[in-house]
Amino acid sequence: METLKVSTRSNPNSVAGALAGVMRDDGVVHIQVVGAGALNQAIKAIAIARTFLDEAGYDLVCLPSFAQVDIDGDVRTAIRLEVRPDRSGSLHPTSPLSG
Amino acid sequence: METLKVSTRSNPNSVAGALAGVMRDDGVVHIQVVGAGALNQAIKAIAIARTFLDEAGYDLVCLPSFAQVDIDGDVRTAIRLEVRPDRSGSLHPTSPLSG
Repeated sequence: METLKVSTRSNPNSVAGALAGVMRDDGVVHIQVVGAGALNQAIKAIAIARTFLDEAGYDLVCLPSFAQVDIDGDVRTAIRLEVRPDRSGSLHPTSPLSG
Repeated sequence: METLKVSTRSNPNSVAGALAGVMRDDGVVHIQVVGAGALNQAIKAIAIARTFLDEAGYDLVCLPSFAQVDIDGDVRTAIRLEVRPDRSGSLHPTSPLSG
């Protein structure tokens, strides 16, 4: 499984493009962030990726959890966002790509 | 549909308790936040709610999008998080509550 590290300096549009690509292949991505600024960029990227995918009849969902990460010997609490295709089938029942 | 406004001063544990309650009733909640600090509290709340629900064999997913909101005459970009039960069925195939 792919893990993307997103920081406060990450470009949400670039991250969104990467996410949308993986989702189209029905893949799963883990995004790892430390701090509120990095989380903000990651969530913006997910919101943008949803608009990219919407045009193709796809959607994605995000599942946040906590993780402990070691940064230069310092243990910090990170947020891990599992991003995967929306499999509920309720939003795009007539997706042109699924039938 | 319920809309929760979460701020930097919101207590993630309290928000998590409210979320978990609605999810157990198969409901949907919209969380609205403005700013990185508020988003951080909201995502922490969702991560905590997932641990509450996990004990009961449930899970939830989060779908972020942008929204324009008017705050005292100022138009600001907010993040809206749609939180709903995970209906993929892939995570808890042997959930004690589903069979």
